[in-house]
Amino acid sequence: MSKSIAVLASLFVALISLDSCAAYSAHGRQPPNLSDAVLTRRLVHQANWASVGSISTSDKIPDYPMVNILAVDDSALNGSSTGYIHFFLLNLDFTGRDTQQKNKVTFFFTEEQSNSCSKRGINPMEPACPRAMISGSVQKLDKSSPDYNDHLQAFINRHKNAEKWVAHGHHFELCELEIENIFIVAYQGGPRVIPAEEYYNAHLENTI
Amino acid sequence: MSKSIAVLASLFVALISLDSCAAYSAHGRQPPNLSDAVLTRRLVHQANWASVGSISTSDKIPDYPMVNILAVDDSALNGSSTGYIHFFLLNLDFTGRDTQQKNKVTFFFTEEQSNSCSKRGINPMEPACPRAMISGSVQKLDKSSPDYNDHLQAFINRHKNAEKWVAHGHHFELCELEIENIFIVAYQGGPRVIPAEEYYNAHLENTI
Repeated sequence: MSKSIAVLASLFVALISLDSCAAYSAHGRQPPNLSDAVLTRRLVHQANWASVGSISTSDKIPDYPMVNILAVDDSALNGSSTGYIHFFLLNLDFTGRDTQQKNKVTFFFTEEQSNSCSKRGINPMEPACPRAMISGSVQKLDKSSPDYNDHLQAFINRHKNAEKWVAHGHHFELCELEIENIFIVAYQGGPRVIPAEEYYNAHLENTI
Repeated sequence: MSKSIAVLASLFVALISLDSCAAYSAHGRQPPNLSDAVLTRRLVHQANWASVGSISTSDKIPDYPMVNILAVDDSALNGSSTGYIHFFLLNLDFTGRDTQQKNKVTFFFTEEQSNSCSKRGINPMEPACPRAMISGSVQKLDKSSPDYNDHLQAFINRHKNAEKWVAHGHHFELCELEIENIFIVAYQGGPRVIPAEEYYNAHLENTI
């Protein structure tokens, strides 16, 4: 009986220790076998939208950094991740207007978009809540390209309402982000740069 | 019996009509008695974080718009909304470095941060999902001011981990956004400007 109590007591101590290991850390630990490139691809693929920075051309805030929201999708027709970030740009909206004058944008993704960091007790400003900043320029997709309809359909598969945007009178254009730079902030080690080639070549299939 | 069928049929038609009224609208309708200023105050008060744009000083993306995440809070000590946006800035992080050279930022808030738009079948890029872009400059709060400790405590009340940030070796500074301009995009009518005075004077108490 005293042996059982000793076993229970040691289990209890083990559980307490486990809990204190699992408790708050601003940095957390990067899961093994999860490279920065795969982590970024996962952030992008999971996101239905991004906060998108542009250089403002509004006369209220000229040359300020502007931030807007765009629906995004990187899926192929079968729903798998490609890494190529597609979005609809409306020429009446902030991002559409700004990029006509200065074609420089940053797409921001955070794991907190699904509330998954705060649900785990992690403050989304901490590196334990991974985030990626993907900068580049807006490229309109060529409607006469043989791939255009597949890209459009893949986007609509995720964003049903996009079918109505296209049918609407406004001037929506399906675009792709031409990536110039990727920063990731995740876990230990501060911000890291990921070469676009490494990002596109990462294999996401086995990790989600 | 045929009468019952007729009643059922008319009910069915009524339901279908109701459904088509309630169905997708990219704009939606602004709730009555909910002014733009109150709506913006509500977006800010509900948010635990913001996507924050700055002008990049990184040599990887000089003069690009950068977007980062900051924990925010506009609460008084009792948790009520003040509209004053407080945040911790880390001088090692993108926003902290960028604003040391160009003190221009935009704080972006969307109702989708709580996933509440997508849960209602609204695409977060549509005006039916309210968003606000609040631009201005970063002002460090004066640690010797009599209000400083109240501001710090109010912030920690919402962001428990902030106590650890302050204790940590990094250089965190509690700051406030000095508002220069507010844009709101919500429901009908395109983007509107809200004067900062109107924003601060709005009464939030009776609306959430």
